[in-house]
Amino acid sequence: MAIVLGPNQYGKAEVRVVAVDRSTPRHSLVDLNVSTSLRGDFAAAHTAGDNAHVLTTDAQKNTVFAFARDGVGSPEAFGLRLARHFAGSFDWISGARVAVESYSWDRISVGGQPHDHAFRRAGGEVRTAVVTVDGDEPHVLAGITDLVVLKSTGSEFWGYPVDRYTTLPETRDRILATAVTARWRYATTDLDWDAVYGGVRTTLLETFAATHSLALQQTLYAMGEAVLEQHDAVAEVRFSMPNKHHFLADLSAFGLANDLEGQPGAVVYHAADRPYGLIEGSVLRDDVKPADIAWLGTPGFC
Amino acid sequence: MAIVLGPNQYGKAEVRVVAVDRSTPRHSLVDLNVSTSLRGDFAAAHTAGDNAHVLTTDAQKNTVFAFARDGVGSPEAFGLRLARHFAGSFDWISGARVAVESYSWDRISVGGQPHDHAFRRAGGEVRTAVVTVDGDEPHVLAGITDLVVLKSTGSEFWGYPVDRYTTLPETRDRILATAVTARWRYATTDLDWDAVYGGVRTTLLETFAATHSLALQQTLYAMGEAVLEQHDAVAEVRFSMPNKHHFLADLSAFGLANDLEGQPGAVVYHAADRPYGLIEGSVLRDDVKPADIAWLGTPGFC
Amino acid sequence: MAIVLGPNQYGKAEVRVVAVDRSTPRHSLVDLNVSTSLRGDFAAAHTAGDNAHVLTTDAQKNTVFAFARDGVGSPEAFGLRLARHFAGSFDWISGARVAVESYSWDRISVGGQPHDHAFRRAGGEVRTAVVTVDGDEPHVLAGITDLVVLKSTGSEFWGYPVDRYTTLPETRDRILATAVTARWRYATTDLDWDAVYGGVRTTLLETFAATHSLALQQTLYAMGEAVLEQHDAVAEVRFSMPNKHHFLADLSAFGLANDLEGQPGAVVYHAADRPYGLIEGSVLRDDVKPADIAWLGTPGFC
Amino acid sequence: MAIVLGPNQYGKAEVRVVAVDRSTPRHSLVDLNVSTSLRGDFAAAHTAGDNAHVLTTDAQKNTVFAFARDGVGSPEAFGLRLARHFAGSFDWISGARVAVESYSWDRISVGGQPHDHAFRRAGGEVRTAVVTVDGDEPHVLAGITDLVVLKSTGSEFWGYPVDRYTTLPETRDRILATAVTARWRYATTDLDWDAVYGGVRTTLLETFAATHSLALQQTLYAMGEAVLEQHDAVAEVRFSMPNKHHFLADLSAFGLANDLEGQPGAVVYHAADRPYGLIEGSVLRDDVKPADIAWLGTPGFC
Repeated sequence: MAIVLGPNQYGKAEVRVVAVDRSTPRHSLVDLNVSTSLRGDFAAAHTAGDNAHVLTTDAQKNTVFAFARDGVGSPEAFGLRLARHFAGSFDWISGARVAVESYSWDRISVGGQPHDHAFRRAGGEVRTAVVTVDGDEPHVLAGITDLVVLKSTGSEFWGYPVDRYTTLPETRDRILATAVTARWRYATTDLDWDAVYGGVRTTLLETFAATHSLALQQTLYAMGEAVLEQHDAVAEVRFSMPNKHHFLADLSAFGLANDLEGQPGAVVYHAADRPYGLIEGSVLRDDVKPADIAWLGTPGFC
Repeated sequence: MAIVLGPNQYGKAEVRVVAVDRSTPRHSLVDLNVSTSLRGDFAAAHTAGDNAHVLTTDAQKNTVFAFARDGVGSPEAFGLRLARHFAGSFDWISGARVAVESYSWDRISVGGQPHDHAFRRAGGEVRTAVVTVDGDEPHVLAGITDLVVLKSTGSEFWGYPVDRYTTLPETRDRILATAVTARWRYATTDLDWDAVYGGVRTTLLETFAATHSLALQQTLYAMGEAVLEQHDAVAEVRFSMPNKHHFLADLSAFGLANDLEGQPGAVVYHAADRPYGLIEGSVLRDDVKPADIAWLGTPGFC
Repeated sequence: MAIVLGPNQYGKAEVRVVAVDRSTPRHSLVDLNVSTSLRGDFAAAHTAGDNAHVLTTDAQKNTVFAFARDGVGSPEAFGLRLARHFAGSFDWISGARVAVESYSWDRISVGGQPHDHAFRRAGGEVRTAVVTVDGDEPHVLAGITDLVVLKSTGSEFWGYPVDRYTTLPETRDRILATAVTARWRYATTDLDWDAVYGGVRTTLLETFAATHSLALQQTLYAMGEAVLEQHDAVAEVRFSMPNKHHFLADLSAFGLANDLEGQPGAVVYHAADRPYGLIEGSVLRDDVKPADIAWLGTPGFC
Repeated sequence: MAIVLGPNQYGKAEVRVVAVDRSTPRHSLVDLNVSTSLRGDFAAAHTAGDNAHVLTTDAQKNTVFAFARDGVGSPEAFGLRLARHFAGSFDWISGARVAVESYSWDRISVGGQPHDHAFRRAGGEVRTAVVTVDGDEPHVLAGITDLVVLKSTGSEFWGYPVDRYTTLPETRDRILATAVTARWRYATTDLDWDAVYGGVRTTLLETFAATHSLALQQTLYAMGEAVLEQHDAVAEVRFSMPNKHHFLADLSAFGLANDLEGQPGAVVYHAADRPYGLIEGSVLRDDVKPADIAWLGTPGFC
């Protein structure tokens, strides 16, 4: 038996780059958090402290800033430029992974007119992209995270098995709330990245809203199915969806009903933090060629 | 010399209450984080462990849920109802403070139509209210926090004194970015709370955008001044505004200019985390009666 | 009526400075987070964007690093050096506030011997200091935050008043847990800061442990009283103590008792996040001269 | 082409259970954060909203509390009990994953004696365990996270390749700091879990301290190699180690040297937040049978 080095990668995480297009008085803004990772033959660094193959993470950071100088475009396109550059930079580098978070900014309106150079960060959801280049082959995952959505009705939960520890009452009407993390893999790199991202996002939101839900799993699957039906470029979708529980407040001790029908006023819920259900799953085309490497290092089950 | 109990208060923090108006098929939603504090004679609890005066924090939580059953309305109105209730509940309770955070949700659009009962959490900024009732006298602070805004030009910084440790170069064109926390005190409780809140928020955003800034202090003051000029009900405004530094990336080592004019592509900045400038200040009417108690326990300088 | 500038301050927040004493092969380490604020006449910056009085926050940051070059010592002493420097630097600067967080590191043991230059961050509690110099007068607050402590018995809660919304059952034996934030003001600056800090910390821990508690308020007061009794240099103490609720799990539906006596195995609790009780209070000597300015800008009630 | 359900799992995340052994007056305490996931045939829930196979996440939570009643023991043993229970509970459940975080508490000393029932949360590092039962086969990962360590010397970085974007100067003496996340897989379940955990932790710390480092990769590999050499039960180790950069402050503009030798006072560094290097790698025995399922759903590369 010998002790050996297994899989490894390294890079610079969370390079916070903001690129402003000032080519006209009407500025535009891209705000990214970029993380790079290199894969290849770095054995000597591990076993002997020999850095001859170790392109510094400082240089990787510099590359991100330098490449942004030419303009960024979409997160997917910027990730592809960077990942191809790194993967092609030295013989011993066999691949690269570039993960991008993109934060949205809206123009501030002044007197009803969107301002040329003043912005408000939109907050909420974050757009993500993960580009992996393995040898010459590129893989692109797009995604969205922290998309917090809620239905105040149109959600049921019943018909589950009962074991010794099951005490939950069935319900035909509950709040369904989750913070969607979705990642989808494109079958091609020849895309209008922003357009298809916007389309998938709309599909996710509309399907969440329109699905009468008997289980969060059902909603998850419906969202994935709709994405695949409506967007040919998508090969598979993976979800992580916490069930953000909203418990009906029990006000009976105070002589107050808190049921769903018939009273004026409001129905009152407690929004709980922990614990929470966590539903994870994937939806894919049955003829899709697997691409494990596209997902390597990306958080989440599957 | 004796050792004595000084000022004290206690309550239940961060009651997460969601109230849904289901009186029509078009639901509406209020999502709050409510913290209560009671003030009065609680000396015996401190010095002898005698709880005869200690209305439990559990009961305070129950009260929040029970009062929400009748409908919540604005954060300010809900805070007033609760604070008046607590302040009037027992002889030994002389005052109450109720702090509310309010999270916004937008309707999800399906096929271009806002959905009746499906929502997306807006993210970003949080609306705040702090209501203090001291005896019978109410005080209301409204506020906004985490309002992240940025100007990509229209900001300068120069003319400052130079000491031994001053090395910063002057600039006539920089990014100005901040995360506004603003709190303003109303001179009255007879207000359409949502309308005036919306108006102040618009004033803050418009003034940030429209002010050509020579200092973040100048922007802060202009924002406060505009609020007071445009909203008679506001007596004073207090701000805490971090200077979220965006540093121009130095790309000269790579043969790349990164100046503000003349190149195609983008101007590239590094968005820094720490340290950051922190500008705090207040703007008020010179004839305003001070109301220290309105601010007691609310974070921030002044 | 005119609109005027009210109280204001500005500075550099969260300068993360690590100072290593390498004067012998046995290194020692100080790890600080330093925030500076200046007070004085900055009106022109606010009303006219005139920065002639604005010592840059960048220079303040540089000063922190430069002063650390001479060695840091205790957080209180370092804060005093900095605050006195800033307050004396320009005519228009009337005062300065320097807040310091200090993170502890323990030496790693190798073969039972503490290593000369390898350390593990201790985690948990953070030592704090806030130094305010107003004119020439210095004020020093020491403190501790995130000191999470728990008693698994020796805590009761009963005898409270019952209103319509009170449903909590009384208990003679509960878990008492809190995350102590304590800040105390010294009556002098002629102290061995590290020694007195260590002494107060020990007093806080021992008193929390040894007090049979009928109310968290009682524990708070006992802790403050003990600090004042045992440490002459302390003039007053202020606490913020969340009641980190641990609820006895109800296992009766599974045929399991979960009471406190008589069973083998363990007693099971759910550690809840939100909401939580929040107890805030102060303990002081009755002959102490108030010093509001010492606390100005420091979070917390009182 | 059809659209199909891919891999999926679900469960209850972050059940915060505290178990107190009160069998003698000297209490002991276990403080855990437990997350469960079930795998198996849940297709109907996804495609038809049929929950007949969906053991509720509420029941999973209840099971965690009920099982804790018998005593918890080590995180690994508790995870095994739970995972075996879930995997054997219904025909359609083919496997289960139980992830545990364990928080340490130290006894508070009073008068030099460790107290019977008063504790201080240790803070800092967290012990982790991930137990996966697939059919009948158990897999156990132990781990540690947030173990923040630093060497103030004994670290070099030089000899790296230079591309267009490489500007970093070489160094023969730098601070090396990281927050270790390590996870190791045991080849057996017949272990004294606490003893072997303690042993691996000691090995990790001692090796970090004792290794003269030419690269963080070298330190990582040395740590893994030492664990495998000293602990026969360990089959493989995986690391994620951010390079927490400490940059030497440039004080030359103030006429101050800040070099490593020869001056009294301290050497001053800026502890940076983002970006940071991120080094990930694995070390294993070359005769080890792979066990991908043991790692499924656990964050991290490899």
